[in-house]
Amino acid sequence: MNIDMIRASAARAKGVVRRTPLLNSPFLDEIAGRRVWLKPECLQHTGSFKFRGGWSAVSALPEADRARGVIAFSSGNHAQGVALAAKMHGAPAVIIMPSDAPALKIANTRAYGAEVVLYDRAGESREAIGARLAEDRGLTLIKPYDEPQVIAGQGTTGLEIAEQAAAQGIETADVLVCCGGGGLTAGIALALEADAPGLTVRPVEPEGYDDVARSLRSGGIERNNTTAGGLCDAILTPCPGDLTFPIMHRLCGPGIVVTEEEALRAMGHAFLRQKLAAEPGGAVALAAALFHADQSTGDDVIAVISGGNVDAEIFQRGLETIAA
Amino acid sequence: MNIDMIRASAARAKGVVRRTPLLNSPFLDEIAGRRVWLKPECLQHTGSFKFRGGWSAVSALPEADRARGVIAFSSGNHAQGVALAAKMHGAPAVIIMPSDAPALKIANTRAYGAEVVLYDRAGESREAIGARLAEDRGLTLIKPYDEPQVIAGQGTTGLEIAEQAAAQGIETADVLVCCGGGGLTAGIALALEADAPGLTVRPVEPEGYDDVARSLRSGGIERNNTTAGGLCDAILTPCPGDLTFPIMHRLCGPGIVVTEEEALRAMGHAFLRQKLAAEPGGAVALAAALFHADQSTGDDVIAVISGGNVDAEIFQRGLETIAA
Repeated sequence: MNIDMIRASAARAKGVVRRTPLLNSPFLDEIAGRRVWLKPECLQHTGSFKFRGGWSAVSALPEADRARGVIAFSSGNHAQGVALAAKMHGAPAVIIMPSDAPALKIANTRAYGAEVVLYDRAGESREAIGARLAEDRGLTLIKPYDEPQVIAGQGTTGLEIAEQAAAQGIETADVLVCCGGGGLTAGIALALEADAPGLTVRPVEPEGYDDVARSLRSGGIERNNTTAGGLCDAILTPCPGDLTFPIMHRLCGPGIVVTEEEALRAMGHAFLRQKLAAEPGGAVALAAALFHADQSTGDDVIAVISGGNVDAEIFQRGLETIAA
Repeated sequence: MNIDMIRASAARAKGVVRRTPLLNSPFLDEIAGRRVWLKPECLQHTGSFKFRGGWSAVSALPEADRARGVIAFSSGNHAQGVALAAKMHGAPAVIIMPSDAPALKIANTRAYGAEVVLYDRAGESREAIGARLAEDRGLTLIKPYDEPQVIAGQGTTGLEIAEQAAAQGIETADVLVCCGGGGLTAGIALALEADAPGLTVRPVEPEGYDDVARSLRSGGIERNNTTAGGLCDAILTPCPGDLTFPIMHRLCGPGIVVTEEEALRAMGHAFLRQKLAAEPGGAVALAAALFHADQSTGDDVIAVISGGNVDAEIFQRGLETIAA
């Protein structure tokens, strides 16, 4: 796992993966007391950065493997990223989802061309179903974060941030990244180490699910007590990955923890000031920039909005925080 | 008013005006029955394309005039575009607004650095106040659409569309543009005439305020009965401009008229499928692409989302159209 893999991933992504802009607003600057720059991956294909990793992994496969197809376990952004990446390669994709997943997520994943295989959370093992399908059809498993080509794909976000920060004359700044298993965080950290060593990645998590912040403090992999029930579902994972944690430990600054209420308020501000729809888990980095400004230093901060796949009902809760 | 002015405006805007992306989604394609491409000017500085025209006009002024300052009448997107453009030039800006304008709009315009002069709609003439201020201080009036440098600035949107369409291999398509006084519509039409003659601009308006569609049919300037009370406030103007109408008449295809309900549904789809906040007037072109597909031909359609400055309460009405 190194910078050359990220550069190779970027070369394969050229003309396909969207180069998202770096946006700022004087109103957000005023709240934070420094310039706030947003990297809106909610504008990426499928509405989250996960398409970068999906495209990277599928495009890296040997032709024969790709022709047999890929498989993933996910009911969320990774499912959609892998499904669309496979479709655009003309490769079959099987996504294993729990039968009680929201109908819209199942419909979306199918609309991106994937075969959705539903399993009963109570009575069936998704791993067993996946292993059987993978063996029968020769499918390649694409893991959501602890997979080098996925990390490389997420890292292309960091190559863009390095270029865009340089264009704005930003030499030192914290780069706040919404963090689940750490694929995006580790990928960006590797890219910045090479191309913008004055930029420091800071993982951001919701309160109660701060496994990465605790792991960075203790120096070993710490786990969440639960990954259920949180508003920030997109970034709730049991613990940092075996591949992602050493990278984060070597390169990242301390983690930042925000409340769900702060994530909702950040969603409101992203709507009001940048006309963006962020999902709760995708808004925690902006929440850290706006409401935990004392944890950073310097004139600039960069916050990644990692995704925007949010139901209207939840989004409404974000809107309510800014209503007059 | 010609293409050279638009190219000169683009040169002055380089590195300042945001180059907005051209976005697509398979879900929107399915509704429209052809590929739908969005040009999201809601992501422009100040949340609408109006910053392009404001920057263009302020940057075109002779140094001495700019130092004295600019003045505009507007309570909406033009006010914010001119205010920020002036601020970024270090030039004073006076914006004349009705005293009953929403507090948020007044606060925003002030936050962009402008001096806001309030007038009483009932008892005072904004033109008289403006004329007096302009004379006393030597301010230059920047009109919202019937002003060559403003049209040139809005036309830079068209230069980008021409490049981005070519990059996608699109040679012929309708380009649907949310249309008020016609500055954006005429500017894009001029740019496409030069750089992408296979692309045809189609002005889009809300029902009951279809002055441009009727003017294009009759060949002369037709007026709206009223410009009050509509949901699509950003694009409600009395009639096409003396400068913009001849350009639209020469270059545009027939106008398309959508209902307010369709504009709200388009807002819902822009949120759900592209993670964008569009205002009602900024969503009428997307509404035409999605719900009046029979009025276009070909494999592709391009729709400009002209702005996203919408209150949470109104946005909620858009969300309700897509709630499960």
